Amino acid sequence: MVATSALGDLLTTLLERRPFGRRVDDKRPIEDSCLTLLSETAEVSGQHQATRILSRYRMLDSDQRTAFFKFLNDDLDLDGETLSERARAYSREPSPENFVALSRASESKRLNLFRRLNEAQGATAEIVNMREDLLAAVERAPELARTDHDLVHLLRSWFNRGFLVIRRINWDSPASILEKIIAYEAVHQIRTWDDLRLRLQPSDRRCFAFFHPSMPDEPLIFVEVALTRGIPTSVQTVLSESRECIADTAADTAVFYSISNCQRGLAGISFGNSLIKHVASDLSLKLPNIRAYVTLSPIPGLMLWLRNRGIAVEVDDSEMLEQLAAKYLLEARLPDGQPLDPVARFHLGNGAAIHAIHAGADLSENGMAQSSGVMVNYTYDLPRISRNTIRYSRNREVIASAAVKSRAKRAPGSGRG
Amino acid sequence: MVATSALGDLLTTLLERRPFGRRVDDKRPIEDSCLTLLSETAEVSGQHQATRILSRYRMLDSDQRTAFFKFLNDDLDLDGETLSERARAYSREPSPENFVALSRASESKRLNLFRRLNEAQGATAEIVNMREDLLAAVERAPELARTDHDLVHLLRSWFNRGFLVIRRINWDSPASILEKIIAYEAVHQIRTWDDLRLRLQPSDRRCFAFFHPSMPDEPLIFVEVALTRGIPTSVQTVLSESRECIADTAADTAVFYSISNCQRGLAGISFGNSLIKHVASDLSLKLPNIRAYVTLSPIPGLMLWLRNRGIAVEVDDSEMLEQLAAKYLLEARLPDGQPLDPVARFHLGNGAAIHAIHAGADLSENGMAQSSGVMVNYTYDLPRISRNTIRYSRNREVIASAAVKSRAKRAPGSGRG
Amino acid sequence: MVATSALGDLLTTLLERRPFGRRVDDKRPIEDSCLTLLSETAEVSGQHQATRILSRYRMLDSDQRTAFFKFLNDDLDLDGETLSERARAYSREPSPENFVALSRASESKRLNLFRRLNEAQGATAEIVNMREDLLAAVERAPELARTDHDLVHLLRSWFNRGFLVIRRINWDSPASILEKIIAYEAVHQIRTWDDLRLRLQPSDRRCFAFFHPSMPDEPLIFVEVALTRGIPTSVQTVLSESRECIADTAADTAVFYSISNCQRGLAGISFGNSLIKHVASDLSLKLPNIRAYVTLSPIPGLMLWLRNRGIAVEVDDSEMLEQLAAKYLLEARLPDGQPLDPVARFHLGNGAAIHAIHAGADLSENGMAQSSGVMVNYTYDLPRISRNTIRYSRNREVIASAAVKSRAKRAPGSGRG
Amino acid sequence: MVATSALGDLLTTLLERRPFGRRVDDKRPIEDSCLTLLSETAEVSGQHQATRILSRYRMLDSDQRTAFFKFLNDDLDLDGETLSERARAYSREPSPENFVALSRASESKRLNLFRRLNEAQGATAEIVNMREDLLAAVERAPELARTDHDLVHLLRSWFNRGFLVIRRINWDSPASILEKIIAYEAVHQIRTWDDLRLRLQPSDRRCFAFFHPSMPDEPLIFVEVALTRGIPTSVQTVLSESRECIADTAADTAVFYSISNCQRGLAGISFGNSLIKHVASDLSLKLPNIRAYVTLSPIPGLMLWLRNRGIAVEVDDSEMLEQLAAKYLLEARLPDGQPLDPVARFHLGNGAAIHAIHAGADLSENGMAQSSGVMVNYTYDLPRISRNTIRYSRNREVIASAAVKSRAKRAPGSGRG
Repeated sequence: MVATSALGDLLTTLLERRPFGRRVDDKRPIEDSCLTLLSETAEVSGQHQATRILSRYRMLDSDQRTAFFKFLNDDLDLDGETLSERARAYSREPSPENFVALSRASESKRLNLFRRLNEAQGATAEIVNMREDLLAAVERAPELARTDHDLVHLLRSWFNRGFLVIRRINWDSPASILEKIIAYEAVHQIRTWDDLRLRLQPSDRRCFAFFHPSMPDEPLIFVEVALTRGIPTSVQTVLSESRECIADTAADTAVFYSISNCQRGLAGISFGNSLIKHVASDLSLKLPNIRAYVTLSPIPGLMLWLRNRGIAVEVDDSEMLEQLAAKYLLEARLPDGQPLDPVARFHLGNGAAIHAIHAGADLSENGMAQSSGVMVNYTYDLPRISRNTIRYSRNREVIASAAVKSRAKRAPGSGRG
Repeated sequence: MVATSALGDLLTTLLERRPFGRRVDDKRPIEDSCLTLLSETAEVSGQHQATRILSRYRMLDSDQRTAFFKFLNDDLDLDGETLSERARAYSREPSPENFVALSRASESKRLNLFRRLNEAQGATAEIVNMREDLLAAVERAPELARTDHDLVHLLRSWFNRGFLVIRRINWDSPASILEKIIAYEAVHQIRTWDDLRLRLQPSDRRCFAFFHPSMPDEPLIFVEVALTRGIPTSVQTVLSESRECIADTAADTAVFYSISNCQRGLAGISFGNSLIKHVASDLSLKLPNIRAYVTLSPIPGLMLWLRNRGIAVEVDDSEMLEQLAAKYLLEARLPDGQPLDPVARFHLGNGAAIHAIHAGADLSENGMAQSSGVMVNYTYDLPRISRNTIRYSRNREVIASAAVKSRAKRAPGSGRG
Repeated sequence: MVATSALGDLLTTLLERRPFGRRVDDKRPIEDSCLTLLSETAEVSGQHQATRILSRYRMLDSDQRTAFFKFLNDDLDLDGETLSERARAYSREPSPENFVALSRASESKRLNLFRRLNEAQGATAEIVNMREDLLAAVERAPELARTDHDLVHLLRSWFNRGFLVIRRINWDSPASILEKIIAYEAVHQIRTWDDLRLRLQPSDRRCFAFFHPSMPDEPLIFVEVALTRGIPTSVQTVLSESRECIADTAADTAVFYSISNCQRGLAGISFGNSLIKHVASDLSLKLPNIRAYVTLSPIPGLMLWLRNRGIAVEVDDSEMLEQLAAKYLLEARLPDGQPLDPVARFHLGNGAAIHAIHAGADLSENGMAQSSGVMVNYTYDLPRISRNTIRYSRNREVIASAAVKSRAKRAPGSGRG
Repeated sequence: MVATSALGDLLTTLLERRPFGRRVDDKRPIEDSCLTLLSETAEVSGQHQATRILSRYRMLDSDQRTAFFKFLNDDLDLDGETLSERARAYSREPSPENFVALSRASESKRLNLFRRLNEAQGATAEIVNMREDLLAAVERAPELARTDHDLVHLLRSWFNRGFLVIRRINWDSPASILEKIIAYEAVHQIRTWDDLRLRLQPSDRRCFAFFHPSMPDEPLIFVEVALTRGIPTSVQTVLSESRECIADTAADTAVFYSISNCQRGLAGISFGNSLIKHVASDLSLKLPNIRAYVTLSPIPGLMLWLRNRGIAVEVDDSEMLEQLAAKYLLEARLPDGQPLDPVARFHLGNGAAIHAIHAGADLSENGMAQSSGVMVNYTYDLPRISRNTIRYSRNREVIASAAVKSRAKRAPGSGRG
């Protein structure tokens, strides 16, 4: 990969300095450059043109970008009539020729444009950033959702699990990667490099991230793991600077205490399930003493739910808080039957089960605000994951320990909810 | 990448030994497993199921594979009627909702199946191999071309130039890669490891290949380059064991004397154009003394064309052979106006020009059979490539040197052809 | 190296858990273990014993370490009488047999002990640390200088230039290396990670370090380089956060503004000369626009020298300060004729020349204290380095620019000093 | 290492093209260049001068090399009288000053010259090659053994076990390394690359080598291992192309069936003991099912010994051959009590034991010539290695199984030998 990257650098340099063939007029609108790139004659200098379009794009301001997205949305859209015609023809006679004609009509031109743009050196990361802009533009111009649908579909194919690589992040990782871990940590803020070191360097800490080979400097998602004896009941204990560090071989539990997505441009493409299972499998091989894979997770929707139901509870009434949290996780549902809590949906959908609930577990400002400090352990019991997923996806069954269930029953208003 | 691969190995091992969740009945037809993988409940154990389906596939015999392809072709096909309906709806009202519905209907289920299969460890290479089987099956059952169209479309997206990495192949490369260079060399056979060494180790030789990060052991295409003083007129000279080796900095010409595709399963996806240009750019930076980038190429269709026109020519009449070869390259065309000769189509389509023609240039059995030993130099003149391509693609103009043109005119039957 | 290190880790683990053969009594004095290691029968389990001795050593307190060094100094010393006898025998008859016998007598046993200890995994770094302890012990017990002489002689052979590797340090380097750069920077303090990033990440900054393959995590020495237009006259300008960053290809000057040794245990072994020349050579190839290689160096002895001579000078009298600094660098000498200033000795001994002197060039607390803020540019003029070195080493000639010389002449007290 | 090597290449290039300072006259005798390199003024351009001396050396013919070695031997020798004087002074007063003076006198100048030469890029390998020449020269001029003693002493220090790295050699190793494995295999010839592949690629084969970081392309020693069920009794079985390959996890025995030193210039420096133990330790961790570590070793001195004692034996009298081989291994000794057989000395000295003897075990030409096809298994029983070594080194006790001992007793002429 080293050699490749070196060649790549050289090529980029070259292309900047000595472009293949005639220099295309720089003042043309970016839209014209895109149409040229889509035309057949452009094939030979496609990589160079793609580089130029992306560099033009970077210099557009927000309004210009929205205008560019509207061009993609309208001018490079599907032709519904042609498509409908060819679909009927294929219905009548499903010949290969009719299939190919149908196929060609069924993809918008913008999809092809994205593929051509990706031929430029380093383009994948730029297209991911473009999606981030697009998501913002959809807020203001909802019809752009058509373009977004195309783009996310393409990105999902490119970021297929089979193309991702997992890397351990530790204190020997490049600083350029580590500063992104600091920036992207979304659950429990990392304030300083010393803070970061405490999560990476001790023998009872692990961190893993997914990367795409075309974006080797950009983690897609990462998970932080604490190796512990027993299941921890508060994040303060897990993150305490003064805690006693243990040998990894002495641990019996792996705690996934933070999982953060890094690329807003990949919103809607889920990596967390794969990452957690990959890490659990890997740890189970390397550290055979580990018996339990659990999370220590926030309950982001708890306080809002309580307020909406007019329930007030004392911050130091731990028992009451835990009962209400149990009730919330087990009973508060979306119209489709899934749990109201987004973190619960994620882990239960992955095949985890609710194991235990702890008051006073996250005393940070954010933790107090969202859940009065209550947290929850989800367990990933490898042999049961598949069965749990089926029960959850078929019947919206929320798998929970007997203790949590009984606690939910004791909550005020239960049995009648 | 090392760490990743190590983890990957571990995971593969684990998945074999300790599958997530309940073991699915091995005796189910592979088709049923595919349907399960496509169903929602399978998501959680998708990687494991994909691994199993691919391993089932490997054990199918040729007839079973054809049956499997027919299942993909028919049972997992597009629904033309639904698609046509939704296309009409979208024509009437191009709302995002209608677009999403249309989009969903416009992809066959088999496309999605291929994407799910790719989640397994090492799947990309297996899917490429599956395409090779499919191409053979299409020969016998032409209706399978529909499935092939879907698969090649997907592979083209996955093997986008932006995802490929280039690596120099030399005598320090792994033997496991080098044995593939020996096996895949399609133009000038490599008989032994010593033969191979002569093409890789001397200071005036280069070899570069494209790889996909998910198939790190499998070159996709490679090009062999000789660094020379002056443009060579025969491949015997280039490959001679007794030639005098020169310092790379002393060379003024880079000769692309062999370019070979490695993966039959990627037939129809072109890498050669990008590879040649990447290598030329790279060499121009590292070896600024190099002034000319040329090929020494076979003319595979020459003898067949002569025979079809009832023209016999003496093997040792070099002048006549060269005139006829010039005429063939310049005048023999396909109905669409492109040159009849496939190698000419490739290089002229890339923006190269015909520079010179040499009799007695390839005395190998194959060279004598296909072109009575005549070969041709195409030149890649970097600043003209773009212009040439446009002239070729718009007007089917075959760019050639004055010498070649005048020689073609002197050929028997010219002016009247 | 990855594989090796992994194997190494495994081996270490193994050796801890399943030692080869009988377990030696842990309670024996470390001295006895050393004698056993030196005896022939120990050969087979040498690596294991060396590991144990080094781990014993780490647990000794300061007094015990001094006692251990005295054991090395006295019990494992040379036998002068035997040596003298064998030297005489060799003088009389210089046969190979007499040479071998003489050779054996001419090395102390402790030298051999250090070599045996080095067989343990990771031992080289530990022996370097041991030298650091030894240097401290020599302060208190000067006779230990004999042992130190042996050890530094051995380390000089092990850290031969031919065994060192140079690595660029940048923002992609491992955090575990970067934190050492922060800790070891001896000239211009690095206060934070952001501070460090400003010295590594911009396109006009470089940093290179020497490493020994057996201590891959420990830089031996590093140099920080600024690429500039023109020769800078103050370190504030060089390090300013608000300076305008330039492209490396736009620079015409490379400024070595900080060079720091990292390992106290390697005191007395000089790497700076090699490092500066290696970096200059490398930059001259990669950035052909660079015409000048200069330092921006402190003058650590200036104020002390002025005070000793009873000369007071106003901090803001730049002209006077620069004249006196010129005079100091050119005229203040050690008894052996070398310059009094240690930094001047280093650079002039390397073949550099004094180029210019700048008041107000280092306004840091340390800079004001040692030289009232005056700094000096030494130039490394590659084609003259060898000649300069010879003039310096033969005649103690201090090479300086005409401007610096004339300024020295104008200094008060000159011509009569 | 990659970056380093790239920089190194650049530097070498630079030094060739733009030498530091004045160009030394190329026609000076190599001896004068050496004296200059040893002089103080040379320090600054030492690396460049060392490069030139080594390149001069490469161009010397055999006689000139011998003359060069004589120069080292005589002109750069120890001064016995000075040394003797200083040794006496140190005896009288063991002050640090006297020690340093003594120390300086106790090393020959040629030792220092070798250290200076090593500063050149790639010098270590060249010095190893120089030793190979020197060994040949000692044959003709025995007095050169003094220089050889110095050089081997230095090399032993540089190739200390702590500086070596172990690498697995497999089918993914660079061809440039693999061709050396083919060339250096000294026990069971590797005829072709396919032959080599059979020893590297199957799941039940391993190969490991030691490397020195300054000679990354040159293995120092390598061992080939077969993973088997049960202890093999013939090398034909081990190497058979048609044998059934087993999974590595299914093996219970690791057979070291070939161990080869690669560098003649390192003769007298033993790596085999460390390599075997490192590999055994490593395998015991990775493949816990392996219970026995054995060799399948030649008995190179058997037939010569029998002939010297006038004993003739039928090639197909297996029982008699095995009895005589047992007797030879147990009873034939050197004057110092060690076994006559060099392979036996190596393994028994390492702490192995004689386990079993097999006739018809090596039917190759060489195997028949040296031992009539008889081979022997030595076992490395990890927990007993240390004890065995002590018994062997103290009492010259040859550890053997009861079966081998009883067979030796049944041999003709036993009990009286």
